[in-house]
Amino acid sequence: MSLTDRAAELDAADPLAAHRDEFLLEAAPAVTSYLDGNSLGRPLKATPAALDAFVRAEWGGRLIQGWTHDAQVGEGGWMDWPTDLGDRIGRVVLGAGPGQTVVADSTTVLFYKLVRAALDHALAEGRDEIVADTDNFPTDRFVLEGVAAERGATLRWIETDPAAGISAAQVAAAVGPRTALATFSHVAYRSGHLADGPAITAAVHDAGALVLWDLSHSAGSVPLALDAWGADLAVGCTYKYLNGGPGAPAFAYLARRHHGLLRQPVQGWMGHADPFAMGQGYRPDPGVRQLISGTPPIVAMVPVRAGVDQLERVGIDAVRAKSTALTSFALEVADELLVPHGVTVATPREPAARGGHVTLRAGDSGRDFRQTTARLWTEGVVPDFRTPDGIRIGLAPLSTSFGEVLDGLLALHRIVENS
Amino acid sequence: MSLTDRAAELDAADPLAAHRDEFLLEAAPAVTSYLDGNSLGRPLKATPAALDAFVRAEWGGRLIQGWTHDAQVGEGGWMDWPTDLGDRIGRVVLGAGPGQTVVADSTTVLFYKLVRAALDHALAEGRDEIVADTDNFPTDRFVLEGVAAERGATLRWIETDPAAGISAAQVAAAVGPRTALATFSHVAYRSGHLADGPAITAAVHDAGALVLWDLSHSAGSVPLALDAWGADLAVGCTYKYLNGGPGAPAFAYLARRHHGLLRQPVQGWMGHADPFAMGQGYRPDPGVRQLISGTPPIVAMVPVRAGVDQLERVGIDAVRAKSTALTSFALEVADELLVPHGVTVATPREPAARGGHVTLRAGDSGRDFRQTTARLWTEGVVPDFRTPDGIRIGLAPLSTSFGEVLDGLLALHRIVENS
Repeated sequence: MSLTDRAAELDAADPLAAHRDEFLLEAAPAVTSYLDGNSLGRPLKATPAALDAFVRAEWGGRLIQGWTHDAQVGEGGWMDWPTDLGDRIGRVVLGAGPGQTVVADSTTVLFYKLVRAALDHALAEGRDEIVADTDNFPTDRFVLEGVAAERGATLRWIETDPAAGISAAQVAAAVGPRTALATFSHVAYRSGHLADGPAITAAVHDAGALVLWDLSHSAGSVPLALDAWGADLAVGCTYKYLNGGPGAPAFAYLARRHHGLLRQPVQGWMGHADPFAMGQGYRPDPGVRQLISGTPPIVAMVPVRAGVDQLERVGIDAVRAKSTALTSFALEVADELLVPHGVTVATPREPAARGGHVTLRAGDSGRDFRQTTARLWTEGVVPDFRTPDGIRIGLAPLSTSFGEVLDGLLALHRIVENS
Repeated sequence: MSLTDRAAELDAADPLAAHRDEFLLEAAPAVTSYLDGNSLGRPLKATPAALDAFVRAEWGGRLIQGWTHDAQVGEGGWMDWPTDLGDRIGRVVLGAGPGQTVVADSTTVLFYKLVRAALDHALAEGRDEIVADTDNFPTDRFVLEGVAAERGATLRWIETDPAAGISAAQVAAAVGPRTALATFSHVAYRSGHLADGPAITAAVHDAGALVLWDLSHSAGSVPLALDAWGADLAVGCTYKYLNGGPGAPAFAYLARRHHGLLRQPVQGWMGHADPFAMGQGYRPDPGVRQLISGTPPIVAMVPVRAGVDQLERVGIDAVRAKSTALTSFALEVADELLVPHGVTVATPREPAARGGHVTLRAGDSGRDFRQTTARLWTEGVVPDFRTPDGIRIGLAPLSTSFGEVLDGLLALHRIVENS
């Protein structure tokens, strides 16, 4: 069977195919193959209408009363949005019971807050080491550098082979009685390697330390079960598979057993136990709201709500099934068309060991994949380039078709073939 | 002349009256008198259309390419939005030359970053004291408490009489050779007292310290001249007089002479000198971008742009003229209708000594102004309550009419009269 027939067959049999029509595909007619939904998800058709309704009925219609009064639409006053939407993300995306997740800030700022909360607590117990791996996303590594320097902590780096990812055995070997916190990306941003959440969490706990998961490349793509893992802390973003739009706010998870014990350092009025008391002296909210600092980004949550709505209707297991089928098909095409030209696959072959994207490296193809990415963009094929020589194929299960994957890889093949 | 005739005369002569029609007033038909535009500004009619266009043409149409490629509309790739919009706010609102202002995060988070940047730098020079006043906005005070505790700094509080506000003489008496940083609200959130920006800045500088201005209640209401004052740092919000919507991102100003010297602690990839290098080791952007941490809140900037557009067309001096007229009229009405019943005025009588809002205190009126505010809300009159006993009348010059002010105060008068 030709690859074209195979793509058509897979699309015809895809139970999620109809959900593509829920996206504003027609907004980008020149983009024939969008392979970067793991960097910025497409907008849903519901999103412009939701924003319009919010501006008129909520912001314009309720004005300042929107913060505290029950809405005629939606779940409650905007004061409750960070925890209401957090709880929904907890239930639909994270496998987290209510009262442990908030939406706020950016991933970087929430990551800083959680690292500081965990480290500051552990320093008091004589634990002054943070364990992380060298293939974690840059912003996480930069935050850790800064926190280690300002708090006098030590950073212990696990040297990760991106293709192999981080293993529980590596973590177990790195953590110890001085470890305060260990932090990893659940899905590696370059290779797509999927870490073993429960096993790594257990390895960190065996050393008496806390684990902080960055779920940016997992949330909305891979099933998560933070409560079942016994995870301590987590952050993630909502503009990838949750389609919240560029710079959408992030989420943070803090397991209930740590409430009142871990405390983040950016003490703002919205994390106060009584935000409108406005008296002297900060008194932290006893629950997960303490992670909030300033006024919550309400307008920016509107698109996120639309994304979570869709995911709730479809269910994460169905999304994961299609995600695995998409990455498998991408590898099948790569093996047939690109590997013979020297391109190498940086992503694990075993479906259970990878997330929702696939990275191909220039290898012996003789191509400069940075230039190749730029050329592909001009042809309406939009993957991402990731250093040093990777083309990252992000496959958003709800908006990507198998035909789209094939179109993109055929375009890459034409370039590689002519090198 | 009756107050009703007087309001009608003022509205008829108001050169900014036509700008009211640029707001979505019809979205809240039950709100006959909105007196809280200094807490949450109304949406502009242009805003829903701008959001719709952004979602379709920019986010949906350009997808990931929106970050780095020039837009067909707007000023450039989204990567430039934090500084492009920052520069516009600098020019239109702050009196700040380009390259010194960014839009990001929330006011609280940016305030934390700037306090830390200033204090950490000064600690190295043996300055370990932060000077602030007790009437500053709660979130500022909470952040200062937290930073002082974590960095081992001392907080020196100036006891402010809210009605009198903070003076340069008080500041001069409080600062000294150990002062690292002094920070104040330019317009006090309760009384509306307008601080003397240049004189206080000079007093702080005389002690060799830096000054950080919170401009949340000034921006878009009172002319500012940060460069001319010689100010060091400033933050402010965009959801009040800039009409950016609930939880809109904040702005921060860092005077150019401090670039490369002051460094904020939340080291994220978007503050890196080369965000997409993604290598090991954080290297801060040499300019004001270093204040950014995570992915900038692009969707949430769209309404802010609409607000700044409007202010740019009108000009801050015309806004200030109407603002002064509105607060003067509010005091005139209060003196005639409310003061005789024991209500007191907490706001300076001298127009040059106040910002854009007026606060009335229950005084000897015998009313509980918290309950009174709740009752006013049910009648479509929406001021804000501020502890301990203040009703705050926020007057947004571009969306508030003199008739609206009178209607609201007449409603308050009916309640006070019947006590």
